[in-house]
Amino acid sequence: MSKLSGFPEFLPADRNAELIVLDHLRSVFELHGFASVETRAVETMEQLTRKGEIDKEVYTVRRLHAAEGETVDVLGLHFDLTVPFARYVVENAGKLEFPFRRYQIQKVWRGERPQQGRFREFTQADIDIVAKDELAFHFDVEIAQVMAEALSGLPVPPLTLQVSNRKVLEGFYLGLGLAEPTAVMQVVDKLDKVPADKIAELLRTDAGLTPEQATACLALADIRTADTSFVERVRALGVDHPMLDQGLDELAQVVAACGGIDGVEIVADLRIARGLDYYTGTVFETRMAGHEHLGSICSGGRYDQLASDGRSTYPGVGISLGVSRLLVPLVAGGLTADRSVPSAVLVALVDEDGRADSNAVAQQLRSRGISTEVAASAQKFGKQIRYAERRGIPYVWFPATADGAHQVKDIRSGDQADADLDVWTPPNIDLRPRIKEQNA
Amino acid sequence: MSKLSGFPEFLPADRNAELIVLDHLRSVFELHGFASVETRAVETMEQLTRKGEIDKEVYTVRRLHAAEGETVDVLGLHFDLTVPFARYVVENAGKLEFPFRRYQIQKVWRGERPQQGRFREFTQADIDIVAKDELAFHFDVEIAQVMAEALSGLPVPPLTLQVSNRKVLEGFYLGLGLAEPTAVMQVVDKLDKVPADKIAELLRTDAGLTPEQATACLALADIRTADTSFVERVRALGVDHPMLDQGLDELAQVVAACGGIDGVEIVADLRIARGLDYYTGTVFETRMAGHEHLGSICSGGRYDQLASDGRSTYPGVGISLGVSRLLVPLVAGGLTADRSVPSAVLVALVDEDGRADSNAVAQQLRSRGISTEVAASAQKFGKQIRYAERRGIPYVWFPATADGAHQVKDIRSGDQADADLDVWTPPNIDLRPRIKEQNA
Repeated sequence: MSKLSGFPEFLPADRNAELIVLDHLRSVFELHGFASVETRAVETMEQLTRKGEIDKEVYTVRRLHAAEGETVDVLGLHFDLTVPFARYVVENAGKLEFPFRRYQIQKVWRGERPQQGRFREFTQADIDIVAKDELAFHFDVEIAQVMAEALSGLPVPPLTLQVSNRKVLEGFYLGLGLAEPTAVMQVVDKLDKVPADKIAELLRTDAGLTPEQATACLALADIRTADTSFVERVRALGVDHPMLDQGLDELAQVVAACGGIDGVEIVADLRIARGLDYYTGTVFETRMAGHEHLGSICSGGRYDQLASDGRSTYPGVGISLGVSRLLVPLVAGGLTADRSVPSAVLVALVDEDGRADSNAVAQQLRSRGISTEVAASAQKFGKQIRYAERRGIPYVWFPATADGAHQVKDIRSGDQADADLDVWTPPNIDLRPRIKEQNA
Repeated sequence: MSKLSGFPEFLPADRNAELIVLDHLRSVFELHGFASVETRAVETMEQLTRKGEIDKEVYTVRRLHAAEGETVDVLGLHFDLTVPFARYVVENAGKLEFPFRRYQIQKVWRGERPQQGRFREFTQADIDIVAKDELAFHFDVEIAQVMAEALSGLPVPPLTLQVSNRKVLEGFYLGLGLAEPTAVMQVVDKLDKVPADKIAELLRTDAGLTPEQATACLALADIRTADTSFVERVRALGVDHPMLDQGLDELAQVVAACGGIDGVEIVADLRIARGLDYYTGTVFETRMAGHEHLGSICSGGRYDQLASDGRSTYPGVGISLGVSRLLVPLVAGGLTADRSVPSAVLVALVDEDGRADSNAVAQQLRSRGISTEVAASAQKFGKQIRYAERRGIPYVWFPATADGAHQVKDIRSGDQADADLDVWTPPNIDLRPRIKEQNA
């Protein structure tokens, strides 16, 4: 029995760390009024292959003993949460209230070759705001703020939220007199992998730009500022276009709104275009310090047509966090929780006849929200304490005996003292598992 | 675009009801020290077909463009959470602490024909306690108590937790002098579908029982008590066997321990055998009042060999709640939450220039844990109130103007009053979505 490559699973303490992350994300999303949606794991192949380009990564699903004549390969596992959400919006449009804010935290599957940072099954956390016919720009700002706030509370290295705006790029190219801005964008988008002089050459040979135009495009892509000063730097390139004006204004609003968030630096980065996706305005990517090789761990943007049912279109803005892409390498590097169980207290067992008493103590503690388990067997107290220690349970409770009061021991400090069963509560910080200090 | 039969999805308010249920289950499981485990959705077909009987229900998974020569149908979606958990235990045995309590709340898939109460994708919530080599009987009692407590807090019709014990049945049959107790159990197990006189006939013709033996078996299966008086009734049948003694003692302990739980009646029911599963002691089934046609919505028991790796065996006791089987029909019947969003407050917008002020109000409320959204546009206040109403948001906050203080309106009562932004908090009951009173 060997592990399946590309399908990560966590041990209990690591799963507790993941739960801390997922709970935090959910909490921030809900504080901002995002409703939970969960869609089925499968979509029709027609739905999944609509975009065309990703079909080779789809896992198809069929009944092992499909009936004679039963059409095969009609269903596949979803490879992201955007396609199912678009389908859900159209399918339920009459019953949803727009603008509709939703978060969705689910597994997705891709039949890719497993490699570092790429999995065949992984968890994503998406937020989107979708409207009918029109979606005001302030929702772009909101999406950026909510995800920045969510990222800010994560137990991860510093993050950089890179923001750009397609209208800045396209308006700039149009202002330069280029006929096919999208083609130019797709060339410039390769700057991550291809050296700038090679890009300049491609812009001249493939996209038909003059050397001056190519130089201007590269100068634009080189602009990166942690505040709104990018506006002046773009202006200094001397290009004018109404779409450029609008894009700069939008991008400045997003950057200004997301400043000063702990652990998340916001950067206007005009290299970011997300060339192959159908974004029409704001675009996001996110890098994690020391893990740049993972690529963007949180990406998204504005799309003027998330979905359409023929009569109405549904514009949206959203961003998707790759929870597994973020966590699996961090857990491999030592990120974990301080316990493998939720329990804050182990109630010791004097002898097997005392199990009812120990159970009653545990139930009393649980009634105050304290996660508690009772020792599995009446071993010597030293062994029961080690039982707690191995699981990271911080407190051991010794039930009252004929000779004495209830006592509770903090097994980290070794302190043991009388305790009142009706009022004793651990400090808040010990109530639930938390992220373990590394190198501690 | 039509909905896929057998793959239920919830609208946001219904999903909020589901979240209330899932959060409650998780909370009870964690209070009792059960650790969360999440396993991958796929298992090898070898693993899934180990038991042999269920293979026709498996969904196989393969890459749409599997490489030339790539073995096909090696993976399938899990059809329960027991098979993956058994695999997880053996795979990680060296890193787990035994006895190991785990809960697992995940989707499972079965390629069955969809029908009422049966789905192709559904959510299960399982708890199990597993040990290495030996698992003390008190864990059977614990599993029953924890699930009864979890069921007790659900917004569902009254539940009956039916408990039996294989040792009672097998010991009784052995005491009657029957050579093949398992064969008898499998016949008696059909009492749900087949009339008693037909069962008596089958016991005589197929299992070779005397008329007296068949009558005794049916008399045993007829015993059903809400307390431990079943022991006397079994004794009155005049059969003796050490295994019967042990089974009666175990069953009495479980029944005695689970009495007096609100909304969950515990019944010792000697008709329950779960004939086709590999249980060896305690067995559980659960019926919901008014929904008996759904069958058992929560089942499980003791298995002396959950898993084995050749050197060690891992006995376990567990119970699995069919969350979707329970909720989907109740939601279809009107069970839902009082809101389609998590938001407790909608902050109104005086005009678009006031958005920053309204955002600041919202952020201040969020900092106290109050889920808050800001109106999408500066419509007339009446329209903004209706925006909240349509989503079930109970409060609308009107930011302070030059002329006056902040005000908050409870849109259910219509009461509107000045409010202090630094301290105002809704009553606890309004903080989060809750189950909507039906017919209210």
